[in-house]
Amino acid sequence: METVFTRILAGEIPAALVYRGPEVFAFMDAGQLNPGHVLVAPCHPYPTLLDMPEDLAATMMRLAWRVGQAVQSAFQPDGLTLLQANRPAGWQTVAHAHIHVLPRYENDGVGLVWPRKDPDLAVLQAYAARIILP
Amino acid sequence: METVFTRILAGEIPAALVYRGPEVFAFMDAGQLNPGHVLVAPCHPYPTLLDMPEDLAATMMRLAWRVGQAVQSAFQPDGLTLLQANRPAGWQTVAHAHIHVLPRYENDGVGLVWPRKDPDLAVLQAYAARIILP
Repeated sequence: METVFTRILAGEIPAALVYRGPEVFAFMDAGQLNPGHVLVAPCHPYPTLLDMPEDLAATMMRLAWRVGQAVQSAFQPDGLTLLQANRPAGWQTVAHAHIHVLPRYENDGVGLVWPRKDPDLAVLQAYAARIILP
Repeated sequence: METVFTRILAGEIPAALVYRGPEVFAFMDAGQLNPGHVLVAPCHPYPTLLDMPEDLAATMMRLAWRVGQAVQSAFQPDGLTLLQANRPAGWQTVAHAHIHVLPRYENDGVGLVWPRKDPDLAVLQAYAARIILP
């Protein structure tokens, strides 16, 4: 299956690569919310994180960690946000799993609406009881 | 150093635990933006992702992947968003590194403002050249 990201890997779409390995790669997000905004992705076009093997998710996070360290050194942002979005309802826009590594600044125009519900502990415990780890 | 999360681990603050291991643990976010909203964190109070060793970041992602699979099975959300925020400018509110695993739905009231800049390829390449991976 082809995606924008596999076409970048194939050299069919121009992009600024940061790292290319056998399993994961990284390149500058064309949108650049702030300078130094990088995408980290698997080379294979798994649509979402949940479609990837656990080992590959760990490998992707290792590269995001390395990119984060490098972006921090190079751009010295005030903060750093990692965002990993799955399916349109989860804010995914390219159906090839990826992590945003985004340098952040106060009043940089990037915004989050975060409506907390704060249920009782008994509700939290009932939710936790439903979560059976594989 | 004590944090809200180490106090949860010590049993000093009530919480609904999902998983407890030697290096990482998971529990229901008290805010519960949507039912099934989990936090994954290292047991040791590293302030941010960049303070953690790479291996531990990978271990944390493995748990986030497992929690994501389990939340998907239990709650069947339309989407899933992982958010890992560092320092206040990066949206971090508790100074103990963590990943949000957040089930998502269309029109769930969670919002993102994402102002793309779309610079030229030459600008992207100049940014990429500054990012030297450790």
